[in-house]
Amino acid sequence: MTFQVYDTTLRDGAQREGLSYSVVDKLAVARLLDEFGVGFIEGGWPGAVPKDTEFFRRARTELDLKHALLVAFGATRRAGVPVADDPQVRGLLDAQTPAVALVAKADLRHVERALRTTAAENLAMIRDTVAHLVAEGRRVFVDGEHFFDGYRSDPAYTAAVVETALAAGAERVVLCDTNGGMLPSQVTAAIAEVTARLGVGPELLGIHCQNDTSCAVANTVAAVEAGVRHFQGTANGYGERPGNADIFAVVANLQLKLGLPVLPDGCLGQMVRVSHAIAEIANIAPDTHQAYVGAAAFAHKAGLHASAIKVDPLLYNHVDPQVVGNDMRILVTEMAGRASVELKSRELGLDLAGHPEALSRVTRRVKELEAGGWSFEAADASFELLVRSELDTAPARPFALESYRVLVEHREDGSVVSEATVKIRVRGERVIATAEGNGPVNALDEALRVGLARHYPELRDFVLADYKVRILEGTHGTGAVTRVLLETVDGAGRDWTTVGVHPNVVEASWHALVDALTYGLDRARV
Amino acid sequence: MTFQVYDTTLRDGAQREGLSYSVVDKLAVARLLDEFGVGFIEGGWPGAVPKDTEFFRRARTELDLKHALLVAFGATRRAGVPVADDPQVRGLLDAQTPAVALVAKADLRHVERALRTTAAENLAMIRDTVAHLVAEGRRVFVDGEHFFDGYRSDPAYTAAVVETALAAGAERVVLCDTNGGMLPSQVTAAIAEVTARLGVGPELLGIHCQNDTSCAVANTVAAVEAGVRHFQGTANGYGERPGNADIFAVVANLQLKLGLPVLPDGCLGQMVRVSHAIAEIANIAPDTHQAYVGAAAFAHKAGLHASAIKVDPLLYNHVDPQVVGNDMRILVTEMAGRASVELKSRELGLDLAGHPEALSRVTRRVKELEAGGWSFEAADASFELLVRSELDTAPARPFALESYRVLVEHREDGSVVSEATVKIRVRGERVIATAEGNGPVNALDEALRVGLARHYPELRDFVLADYKVRILEGTHGTGAVTRVLLETVDGAGRDWTTVGVHPNVVEASWHALVDALTYGLDRARV
Repeated sequence: MTFQVYDTTLRDGAQREGLSYSVVDKLAVARLLDEFGVGFIEGGWPGAVPKDTEFFRRARTELDLKHALLVAFGATRRAGVPVADDPQVRGLLDAQTPAVALVAKADLRHVERALRTTAAENLAMIRDTVAHLVAEGRRVFVDGEHFFDGYRSDPAYTAAVVETALAAGAERVVLCDTNGGMLPSQVTAAIAEVTARLGVGPELLGIHCQNDTSCAVANTVAAVEAGVRHFQGTANGYGERPGNADIFAVVANLQLKLGLPVLPDGCLGQMVRVSHAIAEIANIAPDTHQAYVGAAAFAHKAGLHASAIKVDPLLYNHVDPQVVGNDMRILVTEMAGRASVELKSRELGLDLAGHPEALSRVTRRVKELEAGGWSFEAADASFELLVRSELDTAPARPFALESYRVLVEHREDGSVVSEATVKIRVRGERVIATAEGNGPVNALDEALRVGLARHYPELRDFVLADYKVRILEGTHGTGAVTRVLLETVDGAGRDWTTVGVHPNVVEASWHALVDALTYGLDRARV
Repeated sequence: MTFQVYDTTLRDGAQREGLSYSVVDKLAVARLLDEFGVGFIEGGWPGAVPKDTEFFRRARTELDLKHALLVAFGATRRAGVPVADDPQVRGLLDAQTPAVALVAKADLRHVERALRTTAAENLAMIRDTVAHLVAEGRRVFVDGEHFFDGYRSDPAYTAAVVETALAAGAERVVLCDTNGGMLPSQVTAAIAEVTARLGVGPELLGIHCQNDTSCAVANTVAAVEAGVRHFQGTANGYGERPGNADIFAVVANLQLKLGLPVLPDGCLGQMVRVSHAIAEIANIAPDTHQAYVGAAAFAHKAGLHASAIKVDPLLYNHVDPQVVGNDMRILVTEMAGRASVELKSRELGLDLAGHPEALSRVTRRVKELEAGGWSFEAADASFELLVRSELDTAPARPFALESYRVLVEHREDGSVVSEATVKIRVRGERVIATAEGNGPVNALDEALRVGLARHYPELRDFVLADYKVRILEGTHGTGAVTRVLLETVDGAGRDWTTVGVHPNVVEASWHALVDALTYGLDRARV
């Protein structure tokens, strides 16, 4: 039976405090997870959450997944309602995904106190809903919510939930440590007991762990060691309370420590890139100290062992960092070295291998800029412009700035207006343009477009698709800086992301805006 | 044999990238660790690190520890040097601690390649140094560096290191997963093997884990389950690369999950306070999502389950949060119903249970506002103002706005300036105030403070501590909106968070700013 790597970043992971994805964010995260090679992407709860309904609708035409299947998540039918009449169940079918995950209460106390129904009706709800979805051609996973707590308080009932779901046609029943209170030895024991009691193999089970004891990754690995062949996790462990099992650490442990090839070939090396890009989309600073993928995961304070590290790095690294797309760092420097700059450039179709001096210059500039708060992890277009400037192949800037001015007024009548004026030189001509917008950056963007319109009519097709702002704490005594990520889309649906950093949010946005137009106009001409 | 909780925050934990304690910091951290009830505090490497020599000197007069013993950390004698002539060993004695920890190479490859000495000399170095320190009246712990990697590559030699140290008088030999690559099942197996091979009980061993597989806590717990009765960890898991085992999560797991009373009575409830205080001293933002101690460790996005949580919180918490000094929090989110609004209000000391109509109005307003992009889950102060306005107990706004104007200019010389003017009415007086800032919101904040300063001198103590911006896609055909979260701190270190939402980032910030001042001034008067 093949191993199932099941990602729930977009559903359970979105329960993290303060996190909120747009539909465009969700589509972008799904693409990244697919590049990482997961087998299943749980996209949300269609029908119940309007944003998720929209996600599944757009996914049908906008997602072209290589490895992953989309899964719609939902609940068993309501108590006392025929499954065919339950609008929530219909919403799951309307999502038109190949697979559906159903949450089912596995702890009798929750059945009685939270769901307020009977033990028997809960089993009937599971049986009916699974059978209905299977009859409609869906692969069905059942999440046994509160499985471990339930098993401790009433093993017979909890086992009956597992048995009922499997008998009704569920492909796997996922044992959920919903409250996150388990330790690895307890997970191992519970799986041994429930499989013995039911006489089923552990390969029919899945595992879903929360991190409340700081053991989610270890609990997941313990379940796999016990024979489970389906695990659920989220990118960077995002999730409610202390989060879910970090899918990256689990995958790396399974592949590199237990020798289980759970990802398609070539995917493991995407880990760092995918982890950081998802963090940017989620607008959460990547955790420097995260296992495997953190910038400090393989960082060694120089000194005592520096020469020995040079002789034999593997004496000091538990795995080869490059296997997961990371780098060893010895000196205290920002981000990555030559290898990853070269790798990333190659990804963008730029050969730096034959230009060692340009490679050194790019690496140095990236380090300097990242020390100042820039981040190129999610801003490929800005990175490409930077590399090309060191290769002397950068496109010419479409204009030169003389000055700009942005005004925001809250007037006596309560209205709020934004207005911007830019003074620029375009192909030798001095242009002054003014425009309004719904905010300072939008006004600046509009004014710049007005000023450039005559010389660059193709600008009309560019749409500012997303705009993210992060305030970064100052380092080395400087004040805080603002980092802006700008996503632009052209008429052909191609999108690109640029970055700008400055203490002033308007100026940071300006940098990202200029990069976005420069990159887009150059590409429009190709 | 009593259990030994051994903290190395001040030694191994200080290896974390970017972390640097002063001597005063180290003394403060030691006091906090003692209040938490650890048995041993490894304070540093006297003799080798001047700051640590100083720490041990001052500790003799300035630390009055109730529970913990201080431990000086160092290395075995140098190869080819008599132990009595080794200045580094003399430095350990000069520290005058009751106990000493010695690092000893347990992996033959490191002996030969990093230490560049022979297998036999390494054993002699361990034997001589342990015996010398024991003869001088010290309790001696030996850290078997790279024990697990060494055991895998040459079990006989690694076992000989353990045997030599114990025979020379070491109280415990600590098995170190120095590179952090182990999984719990591997730790369990290695301990079983080495104890069988040597015929010693696991209670003579200790465990020290790094978090490179995200399993440091689980590995430590696995060792204890295998009979080890000494474990090493650091506050909040600080340490090199992904860090060390988090001493808080390990202690909580041992006490609450395995029923091992490893701390003195009354200490467990200090956990959250000690964790956050050490983070402050280390100048690292506390990890909101840390197990047991994080602000979100027991935070629930209520909605669906709020009514059940109200009935029986322990159905949804893996332990009672108060046992570790934490609190359950209900996050008010999109799906908020009456139950979670009521629960959340009660948390803030506001009784809505007796005001069913106000409860309905609050619930309706929260839903409307959240549909428009507001989010109260991280903005307790704005939520409290909202509830109190429905209860007619809201504090008066400190001023009325007539208008404001914010200007950002990128001038011809490349400089970027921000300037704001506010026109307000404060206690009947019309005030016009102008200020500059490093960005539009900072300028607005400054101008408002200038305008309010005479009437509200207590404003001077308010500091804008954090500022988060999120652009949210529009819903129902409206344009995108910007959500701003503002964290403010007063002179007493109390902090509160407010929220503002508007299509214009400046106006959104203005809303959050006004809430922040209204809330803070009201509280300052209580």
